[in-house]
Amino acid sequence: MKIDQNIQFNSDNKLIHFLNIENLSAEHIYEILELADKVKTKSLDGKTIASLFFEPSTRTKTTFELASKRLGADFINIDIANSSTSKGESVLDMIKTLEAMQCSMFIVRHNTSGIPHYIAKEVGEKISVINAGDGTNAHPTQAMLDMYTIKKYKGPFEDLNIAIVGDILHSRVAKSLIASLNILKVKSINIIGPEILMPKNIDQLNVTYFNDLEKGIHETDVIIMLRLQKERMHEALISTDDYYKKYGLTKDKIKKAKQDVIVMHPGPINRGIEIDSDVADGPNSVILDQVSAGISIRMAVMSLILKNKK
Amino acid sequence: MKIDQNIQFNSDNKLIHFLNIENLSAEHIYEILELADKVKTKSLDGKTIASLFFEPSTRTKTTFELASKRLGADFINIDIANSSTSKGESVLDMIKTLEAMQCSMFIVRHNTSGIPHYIAKEVGEKISVINAGDGTNAHPTQAMLDMYTIKKYKGPFEDLNIAIVGDILHSRVAKSLIASLNILKVKSINIIGPEILMPKNIDQLNVTYFNDLEKGIHETDVIIMLRLQKERMHEALISTDDYYKKYGLTKDKIKKAKQDVIVMHPGPINRGIEIDSDVADGPNSVILDQVSAGISIRMAVMSLILKNKK
Amino acid sequence: MKIDQNIQFNSDNKLIHFLNIENLSAEHIYEILELADKVKTKSLDGKTIASLFFEPSTRTKTTFELASKRLGADFINIDIANSSTSKGESVLDMIKTLEAMQCSMFIVRHNTSGIPHYIAKEVGEKISVINAGDGTNAHPTQAMLDMYTIKKYKGPFEDLNIAIVGDILHSRVAKSLIASLNILKVKSINIIGPEILMPKNIDQLNVTYFNDLEKGIHETDVIIMLRLQKERMHEALISTDDYYKKYGLTKDKIKKAKQDVIVMHPGPINRGIEIDSDVADGPNSVILDQVSAGISIRMAVMSLILKNKK
Repeated sequence: MKIDQNIQFNSDNKLIHFLNIENLSAEHIYEILELADKVKTKSLDGKTIASLFFEPSTRTKTTFELASKRLGADFINIDIANSSTSKGESVLDMIKTLEAMQCSMFIVRHNTSGIPHYIAKEVGEKISVINAGDGTNAHPTQAMLDMYTIKKYKGPFEDLNIAIVGDILHSRVAKSLIASLNILKVKSINIIGPEILMPKNIDQLNVTYFNDLEKGIHETDVIIMLRLQKERMHEALISTDDYYKKYGLTKDKIKKAKQDVIVMHPGPINRGIEIDSDVADGPNSVILDQVSAGISIRMAVMSLILKNKK
Repeated sequence: MKIDQNIQFNSDNKLIHFLNIENLSAEHIYEILELADKVKTKSLDGKTIASLFFEPSTRTKTTFELASKRLGADFINIDIANSSTSKGESVLDMIKTLEAMQCSMFIVRHNTSGIPHYIAKEVGEKISVINAGDGTNAHPTQAMLDMYTIKKYKGPFEDLNIAIVGDILHSRVAKSLIASLNILKVKSINIIGPEILMPKNIDQLNVTYFNDLEKGIHETDVIIMLRLQKERMHEALISTDDYYKKYGLTKDKIKKAKQDVIVMHPGPINRGIEIDSDVADGPNSVILDQVSAGISIRMAVMSLILKNKK
Repeated sequence: MKIDQNIQFNSDNKLIHFLNIENLSAEHIYEILELADKVKTKSLDGKTIASLFFEPSTRTKTTFELASKRLGADFINIDIANSSTSKGESVLDMIKTLEAMQCSMFIVRHNTSGIPHYIAKEVGEKISVINAGDGTNAHPTQAMLDMYTIKKYKGPFEDLNIAIVGDILHSRVAKSLIASLNILKVKSINIIGPEILMPKNIDQLNVTYFNDLEKGIHETDVIIMLRLQKERMHEALISTDDYYKKYGLTKDKIKKAKQDVIVMHPGPINRGIEIDSDVADGPNSVILDQVSAGISIRMAVMSLILKNKK
């Protein structure tokens, strides 16, 4: 599926959907980060927001639901597994139907890359679409909440050395992260993990690859751990134990980074696999800050794109 | 189960439940159609509305949920599959329990005809019941939203020729439709489909039966397609392909109707079986208008019967 | 799991969680019973309340949801079966995550005794926890709504003879009931049922055991039937038929109690097993009053402990 990212802008270059990071400007990103600190509750009173999760999720769906309710919107969750879509109704018929029900926004997660963009293209003038994760393509609100958390704890982005650890190849979180960090012109991005789990276009990403965790996190300001997908380990011919030994973040290894390094993880954590409890619950961890940021950032994005739609 | 339709009126002949079309007057129907254009949001603030869907449904349940929320009511969905009713609690115990929780209205769908009427008879003074589809008996809010859509696009009902296509015998939608159209005194009603899927009391229905689609839709103002139930085709000894050939609505066949005919379908559509995409998405289709009407009509019915309960 | 009940009080001996009856004072109980009559709707506007039901339940979950909504709070139901907890996320990680989402209260049901206490110990300053039933330990809001119902219909607790019938050994409802009745100093508590389903520490409970139903309910003011768990009958080597013959409450047997005895049951009822329809729907039954009380009591408890948290 060809993905048209430009669909997320109106003719004034304002965001009217939120689908991808790659073609945002630094101004677009900073506008969201700043709005997250001052978005007003009840500002979407009378609007209806529908979640369409074709892939299961608790955390992301719950934060979108809470963000919607705090904005005063009516939130409905379309249970795809039990819906007519599973009985053969097309996705397109379903969204046209929800549109006719005067929904203002769709929150879409799908295991095929590009579905949220396709939906954004097909919906009418009055609907905004947010990508809540599509295939291996993007998870832009996750990247935004991570930027928010980094901004909160660390100096200007331009001065930061960042490490991202795990399965970069299949991770939509990593893709959106790398795009964001490049737009914000961080000093360096190191990516770390088994070589087989690294993207092929590594030269075009403005990152440095390390197979060795301790070298990769050396003198970094921020370490972002990705969630390990056990099914990918099988593919990478590496056991969970070996993965932990090589890439698991421990109290000991973390000493290679700067002393005030912050450690991030999108959750849910696999304790003792990609990260030790000592680190996850330790003084450098900002993992729960990321969760809180998730609500404010989503409120900001929802509020912003609906305002721009008008 | 003997169905007592009169239970839906109070002593002033006002609707206090909404269960069946058959014994409504034209005035009852027009009151709902007119209220749909002016029903106020938040007018049921503080009320609690419970949905009891013993049969699965996405579209109807979602529109009732949205209608409730837009009216400002608290909406709770009783998940029957996981509830104590599935563990042997009787329906009656369940509704008495919900009544004790100060619910004001039950939205009931059940695969046995007459269950909503039975519940309406058993509930106390303060509760209204809406039939969201019972067995092969009735789907009165669907009929009302169809009347709303016809009224919106076409002249007075008295001048209209209407065709209904599909499995009339088993369709609660068709039963409620035919009743409504007769009450509103349309000029003619043609019913079209395999003979084995036609009701036995056809003489009493004030309709004309056609086996041939093109003859049946000749010079009609409105064509209402019913959703094909694949399991019924088996019973009717007709393949899906043959059904499509004989009764599927195509761009070509539609030419037999008036040029400005409107095409309706309760959804979800089986594209390429009972209706072609060319028609479903074409200029004569008002299928998405029906969806929008579904919200306003349900808001109107809910608002009206609760007002009359007082 | 060692259960620390004192965690439910702040340093002023005010309730900040609601976990167990055993160490409440009569004042604590009366405060809740009185608040139930005057708790204000919309008083928790802007708060978020999350239900965490690790055991299925319709009735209790629905009353908490309704109570939350009537208090104006946002309510989210974490569907444990489909959540990451079922994929190996620890309960602790889940509650820390919900806490970071600015939830103010967790409603917890779990089949292991002590889980709500454990969660209350681990959550931060701003969160309150309500036990909605834990293993065989406690179901304190059920006991409170039962006290409310008894107070509504009967004279001072000090004058009352109460009978509790059924599987006392495994019933968390019975444990919380007996604790409440003792704190409120009722005149007598009789417990009735097969000997094998009686607790072992019966001497410490200030109750009298009867194997014979008619003797046990003799001259009682209140009879509380417990829900029969069929799987326990097997354990007790008694058939459902024999159980009904010995312990089922019938119109005839009820004559042994005072004429104005009230009959209670936490629901859902097994008609014709532990209780006859003649009794459940008869003039002495206050079963539906218990349901109504369930909403007001839960609104009162939620409102009280959040106020005390401040």
